[in-house]
Amino acid sequence: MMLQYENYLQTHQSRFLSELLDFLRIPSVSALSEHAADVQQTADWVAERMKAAGIPDVCCLPTGGAPVVYGEWLQAPGKPTILIYGHYDVQPVDPVELWTDPPFEPVVRHDKVYARGASDDKGNMLIPIIAVEAMLATEGTLPVNLKFFFEGEEEIGSPHLMEFMQKYSQKFVCDLVVSADGVQWGEDQPRLLIGFKGLCALQIDVFGPETDLHSGIYGGTIQNPIHALVHILNSMHNPSGRIEVEGFYGGVVSLTETERNQMAAIPYDGSDYKAKLGVTELFGEPGYTTWERAWVRPTLEVNGIWGGFQEEGVKTVIPKEAHAKITCRLVPDQDPCDIIKRIINHVEAHTPIGVKAVVHSEPSTASAYFIPQDHPGNQIAYDTLEALYGKPPYYTRLGGTLPMCNLFLDILGVYTVTFAFGLEDEKPHAPDEFFRLRSFRRGQLAYCKLLERLSQQDNSYDE
Amino acid sequence: MMLQYENYLQTHQSRFLSELLDFLRIPSVSALSEHAADVQQTADWVAERMKAAGIPDVCCLPTGGAPVVYGEWLQAPGKPTILIYGHYDVQPVDPVELWTDPPFEPVVRHDKVYARGASDDKGNMLIPIIAVEAMLATEGTLPVNLKFFFEGEEEIGSPHLMEFMQKYSQKFVCDLVVSADGVQWGEDQPRLLIGFKGLCALQIDVFGPETDLHSGIYGGTIQNPIHALVHILNSMHNPSGRIEVEGFYGGVVSLTETERNQMAAIPYDGSDYKAKLGVTELFGEPGYTTWERAWVRPTLEVNGIWGGFQEEGVKTVIPKEAHAKITCRLVPDQDPCDIIKRIINHVEAHTPIGVKAVVHSEPSTASAYFIPQDHPGNQIAYDTLEALYGKPPYYTRLGGTLPMCNLFLDILGVYTVTFAFGLEDEKPHAPDEFFRLRSFRRGQLAYCKLLERLSQQDNSYDE
Repeated sequence: MMLQYENYLQTHQSRFLSELLDFLRIPSVSALSEHAADVQQTADWVAERMKAAGIPDVCCLPTGGAPVVYGEWLQAPGKPTILIYGHYDVQPVDPVELWTDPPFEPVVRHDKVYARGASDDKGNMLIPIIAVEAMLATEGTLPVNLKFFFEGEEEIGSPHLMEFMQKYSQKFVCDLVVSADGVQWGEDQPRLLIGFKGLCALQIDVFGPETDLHSGIYGGTIQNPIHALVHILNSMHNPSGRIEVEGFYGGVVSLTETERNQMAAIPYDGSDYKAKLGVTELFGEPGYTTWERAWVRPTLEVNGIWGGFQEEGVKTVIPKEAHAKITCRLVPDQDPCDIIKRIINHVEAHTPIGVKAVVHSEPSTASAYFIPQDHPGNQIAYDTLEALYGKPPYYTRLGGTLPMCNLFLDILGVYTVTFAFGLEDEKPHAPDEFFRLRSFRRGQLAYCKLLERLSQQDNSYDE
Repeated sequence: MMLQYENYLQTHQSRFLSELLDFLRIPSVSALSEHAADVQQTADWVAERMKAAGIPDVCCLPTGGAPVVYGEWLQAPGKPTILIYGHYDVQPVDPVELWTDPPFEPVVRHDKVYARGASDDKGNMLIPIIAVEAMLATEGTLPVNLKFFFEGEEEIGSPHLMEFMQKYSQKFVCDLVVSADGVQWGEDQPRLLIGFKGLCALQIDVFGPETDLHSGIYGGTIQNPIHALVHILNSMHNPSGRIEVEGFYGGVVSLTETERNQMAAIPYDGSDYKAKLGVTELFGEPGYTTWERAWVRPTLEVNGIWGGFQEEGVKTVIPKEAHAKITCRLVPDQDPCDIIKRIINHVEAHTPIGVKAVVHSEPSTASAYFIPQDHPGNQIAYDTLEALYGKPPYYTRLGGTLPMCNLFLDILGVYTVTFAFGLEDEKPHAPDEFFRLRSFRRGQLAYCKLLERLSQQDNSYDE
């Protein structure tokens, strides 16, 4: 027997798709100031769409940057209050020439919609709004109290949200956060994300002589800043891939046997993994599997390096300076500020004579996030996904970073359960991003089911 | 008593300066194809100037690139034949915004002329033409037979001259080459250059995954091409600065005690040297002095490095590739091709797993050049300079490379004596290049004296 809201969702699907296309047409690129008006317009669009869904109290809250679109429906006394998180901003579109169709002119092909933000995160964040519309339209009520929190700066590291959260913490009090930003394992295999890595970022600048010098006159007599930089960078890993920064692994929580076994049980095909990336060999910290390296071991990666002559041909120069950018992905319980200090100390200890090395840390830092697998919110999401997909979800972590999860935990004291329907192959952040419309439809029903199941729990989601 | 040619030089000095300014106005930048017509026009200007000096047979010889302006005066039977070398092309002017005046609008200030090519090499190569004019005008004859060889591709490594020299070797037969491209020690201190370093150049390209990857998803599981590149580059020197490429020092001729003592006698002030370059410490191969490191020890310098993200802010990317450019300055008896092979082997042996490293060698290679200090040509130049400056010249080498010296030695079997009047502080290859007009005038007289002294030697300059 089809439920009323299920019937409603089916009946209105073509309108929902048409709304998604409208949503995708607004180029809400948070990284580029020329799109500031588009970001604001997108926030207004989201607010209108929430009102149309029947959410009574909707407003755009100023953050100092892009507004948070906030809405609440609190008419279920005695029931838990759930805060649904998502973001309406998108990544830049460069290199735009690699897109098959213009990134803000969405195209539907083979039941997939192609556009910037389709998967990350517009398609996903529209899903709970539609689910709520369907339930309110057919039942006139919702099974839980709801707060909606849609930000517009996720793609630039949510720089204004720490202060914003502190200011509005009373407004967002809730029992659980559900994130509509995240990924499933596969089209037919659900997963629950139980951890994200933290992040810290820095730049190393090595300064040598006052000007670029002719290598024929001065070569061999002074320290070459590039030589010094490669010496510093090379000292950060040993040849087998372990990070050699003193104390880097000090705060790292060890894996339990159960956790290792659980990760080992997640399907893994090394040949597929290599083929997908186009590498001949995998490489990483000794003693850990690929999943462990990707999900639960901290990393230190040089993301960029530059100095001296980079054109065609030959220029016999000793450059006056050389530079590198580094990010670390951190795990529980590493403190990003402590790691930055350790790297600064390491650079100091490994700078050869004759040059000066300066380390700048970047403001975007985040601690790792971890939600216990048996958290009641996870259990409910697990049951919902299992019923919907017909198989149990995997529990996995992710090497990426979702700064808001920790912010919600720190300031509101509540965990975030990730409940979203993107897939990793949908090219988020890359040309030809797409979203499967099957996921779009399935997600709407999944959210209705999730809200129903959440109402059966008492209103405490504390551990 | 003033000699007749000396009087002639004094009388016509303002015309000579005006001619130098004309010469400097033509932007003969050999590196840039847009200046090809200017290079040709400069060759024509030089040919006309030589004819005006009274050199009877002047022509522009095609090389496949910029012509060699050739002239000869062979009316001194029984006297030695001297080939005078110089170049009429100049370096590019970038960064042009750092010039006080436009680089091809010469300006005279405080008895210095400022323009691209003023010191390197137009001012210097015009000197022997003027000297010959003065002698022919006042005496109707020259003390030796002369051939002039002015090339237009020195600044790009003389790519066409190997083939050209082989084709015309009979034409250039001579007893000695005198180079009008070179530098003195100081305004009041002459020197004789007795060695130049050789050169080889290469690029290392390290390739990893097929596309740039998100460090949050794949970080820690594959080899990062930047990590691999810094490992390869760092392995090329030990921490004390010695080159670790196997066999790199194998062919290097050891210094004699006399040579070391001679170099130790050349004035050196470490504090001045550091202050001039703006470095806090000098650094180089252990066991050698700064002059030895600069002049007679081979070097391996990374001239450029690049890969991944180089903009402001943070991008958590593992780049698909990373690159570096290297040049080595070589000494007797290192073979540039052998050194390239050794570096290729070194890169192969030090490439970490998971990436591919490819080494491209650049076509510009040159062997080191060395002329025995007691070569008769050197003795004559020594005496000439000593008489003119009132003090004995230093014998020194140079870390730079003059490919033609070896070409003359290999193909014509004759040594090159460097007899030129630039100074290292005159910013060759840099903005605000200048030439001291005092050197311009003194050089003219010096060439007259040199030719007179050369005529007193029998016509064999063989060792």
